Amino acid sequence: MTKPLRLGVAGLGVVGTGLVQLLQRQGNALGVRAGRGLSLAAYSARRKRDGRAEIGDALYYDNAVKLAAEGDIDVYVELIGGADGIAFESVKAALQRGVPVVTANKAMLAAHGLELARLSEAHDAPLFYEAAVGGGIPVIKTLRESLAGNAIERVSGILNGTCNYILSRMETDRLPFDACLAEAQRLGYAEADPSFDVGGFDTAHKLAILTSLAFGSKIDASAVSVEGIESITLADLVAADELGFRVKLLGVAERTPHGVEQRVHPTMVGKSAPLAQIMGVLNAVSIAGDAIGELTLVGPGAGGDATASAVAADLIDVARGTRLPAFGRPAASLSDADRVPMQRHEGGYYVRLTVVDRPGAMGAIAARFGERMISLEAIMQKRATRESAAAGVVPVVLMTHGTTEALIRDALARTLEEGVVRERPQVIRIEREAV
Amino acid sequence: MTKPLRLGVAGLGVVGTGLVQLLQRQGNALGVRAGRGLSLAAYSARRKRDGRAEIGDALYYDNAVKLAAEGDIDVYVELIGGADGIAFESVKAALQRGVPVVTANKAMLAAHGLELARLSEAHDAPLFYEAAVGGGIPVIKTLRESLAGNAIERVSGILNGTCNYILSRMETDRLPFDACLAEAQRLGYAEADPSFDVGGFDTAHKLAILTSLAFGSKIDASAVSVEGIESITLADLVAADELGFRVKLLGVAERTPHGVEQRVHPTMVGKSAPLAQIMGVLNAVSIAGDAIGELTLVGPGAGGDATASAVAADLIDVARGTRLPAFGRPAASLSDADRVPMQRHEGGYYVRLTVVDRPGAMGAIAARFGERMISLEAIMQKRATRESAAAGVVPVVLMTHGTTEALIRDALARTLEEGVVRERPQVIRIEREAV
Repeated sequence: MTKPLRLGVAGLGVVGTGLVQLLQRQGNALGVRAGRGLSLAAYSARRKRDGRAEIGDALYYDNAVKLAAEGDIDVYVELIGGADGIAFESVKAALQRGVPVVTANKAMLAAHGLELARLSEAHDAPLFYEAAVGGGIPVIKTLRESLAGNAIERVSGILNGTCNYILSRMETDRLPFDACLAEAQRLGYAEADPSFDVGGFDTAHKLAILTSLAFGSKIDASAVSVEGIESITLADLVAADELGFRVKLLGVAERTPHGVEQRVHPTMVGKSAPLAQIMGVLNAVSIAGDAIGELTLVGPGAGGDATASAVAADLIDVARGTRLPAFGRPAASLSDADRVPMQRHEGGYYVRLTVVDRPGAMGAIAARFGERMISLEAIMQKRATRESAAAGVVPVVLMTHGTTEALIRDALARTLEEGVVRERPQVIRIEREAV
Repeated sequence: MTKPLRLGVAGLGVVGTGLVQLLQRQGNALGVRAGRGLSLAAYSARRKRDGRAEIGDALYYDNAVKLAAEGDIDVYVELIGGADGIAFESVKAALQRGVPVVTANKAMLAAHGLELARLSEAHDAPLFYEAAVGGGIPVIKTLRESLAGNAIERVSGILNGTCNYILSRMETDRLPFDACLAEAQRLGYAEADPSFDVGGFDTAHKLAILTSLAFGSKIDASAVSVEGIESITLADLVAADELGFRVKLLGVAERTPHGVEQRVHPTMVGKSAPLAQIMGVLNAVSIAGDAIGELTLVGPGAGGDATASAVAADLIDVARGTRLPAFGRPAASLSDADRVPMQRHEGGYYVRLTVVDRPGAMGAIAARFGERMISLEAIMQKRATRESAAAGVVPVVLMTHGTTEALIRDALARTLEEGVVRERPQVIRIEREAV
């Protein structure tokens, strides 16, 4: 039997701990499946963990870069996190000496993925990162291997469990955003500083990775148009419900006549669509390709054990000697990412307006939309509440048929100028594709 | 650049034609992803197809065994079908001379999978079969590679599009079984002889493959307990609907205290369960493991293009030189499949009875259940229809809490003996697990 694969694991947080426990629990079975044993040879963490059963006699390094650059290891497992700093330095050090790398670090891949892919190829050291997107869901392998025979048309997903938890809870229990965010923080689903999650940036990093794999472009997180869920109100979720929709934070990469759009934003999806069924902290990804039609993967997007499952799969690939380019194609054959301005986005729109309660106001709004050939699919005007009556306004929701972002924004700017609308209008894009 | 991978394709039916068209359409992209070109070097079919663009100058063999045994090819693609005969002979011939095999043939794997896995190992010729289960859904790769770090607890799926189409149509449009089957045949979803699909045998073959991968056992289709959907009536679907359930034909492989159960039968699943959302010809598989929790894959379970997508993924693995045992572990380490009698199955049951309309009948039934400690969760007695009133009977539906199949069968046998029940009772198992 081949010698065991010697692992160097950097970072013993939730995922790192999940991994070493999985290795201990499943050790023999993993060895049978991988064709050779997997043994923890060295680790790096803030503090020494000697004496723990799952650590065994692994060597401790207080410096992860040193572990990656000098450790007596066959694979370097980076679970530190952060786009730069020790994570990035250590991964480069491992690749540069030809040591394969397994990482869960989406921020680093979003920032430096292309450079790392080139390093990986130059030194014939594989770079695996199943755990970076969708936690335990095998979306990287699916795009990189299982759907490699397809021309991909669209990838869309719920990629952030924090946001999906908040939106699900708001809708199901009719609670305001702030209360749900506070609860998510209490339950450990959201960070003390939640802006990275609720602002959509975590989803954008993951989407950038999927886009490169799906469309063969250089990873470019700056080409992703990003909107978070902070502005979503209970009023929007209630109106969506009445109109047969749910609001989800989606990441969407899609081939359009203007190039491959990459966008992250709250989205109206029809209640019967597969992605509308995903509630709570679950993640899901739907992929449309010319041969497959549509494939949807649903599973846990976070959590130590589920993410460790993805890391273990990568380790088995390393143990088996699997070789393939980091983004599915040689780095030299990756094209530049398209930059499609959101103004060119085409689709339907949900618009919630605070309309001044006076004769002719609705007519003026309808005229501004009509002049731009925006046709309306639904208009919903609710009875004024006590507060809105006192303020002399009425809440109105419009849903449009297909139009462009530029026309919608232009029409809304005019209604604001004319003074028939108060406050900033709420605009949520509708996805009518089978998502 | 490495020389192209020379393909020998046997069988140009729906999947074979989908594959050669995909190769023609995606040729360059496939080459970039696979690290080498894929070229159709030879083919076998009932008749020559020379002159077609997608055939090019590939050599024609009227004998697939000869193609496999002698063709100047790097991989043999078996798309003929059938458990034995030419398919089996040709696959053996290819493996015996060390030529990798890609196949979509579930019947052959169910019958001879272990023998083929041994041949594959003995001659170091990989055996890939992603297209054999779930059409375009990458469930083989997911179990064999992505979840290899998990102890699998349960695999359950909707694996036959014909049955799911019929059950969906019956439920949605309140049509009888025969009408939906005839329609499925008209639409090409069901064979002229539908017994293989509606009898559950196709699902059983696929489940046997998934069980071997998930639990490390020797593939053994004879260990699968099989019931089809022929006995499902509209009355069952209507009652299920009223009780908050849908009826799906599931294949389930599950670790129990008595061993790994393998069973295929119509199943009551709660309407909000992921598998209950799968309507029409779609397929879906849910996998529960100790690390991943639960993962669900949904996609097209059949169709030429979707299945060709799975074959193409296998071909890319061959082109990249991927090596792994056919069932994820060396054949010598596979255990014997458990044979768990359905009598030992534990779970809830739906029972529909035709009860004789006389005083004490319901009491007698309740007594027979109570004596066996079977507790009832729901009792639904409908008003007698004109027909049932004329026959002196009333339709009654019971739902039980957890019990065993043996106790249920015993209680029902007694009620039949006592003459309080007419006709054979309808018994449908309930799955309360998150399926």
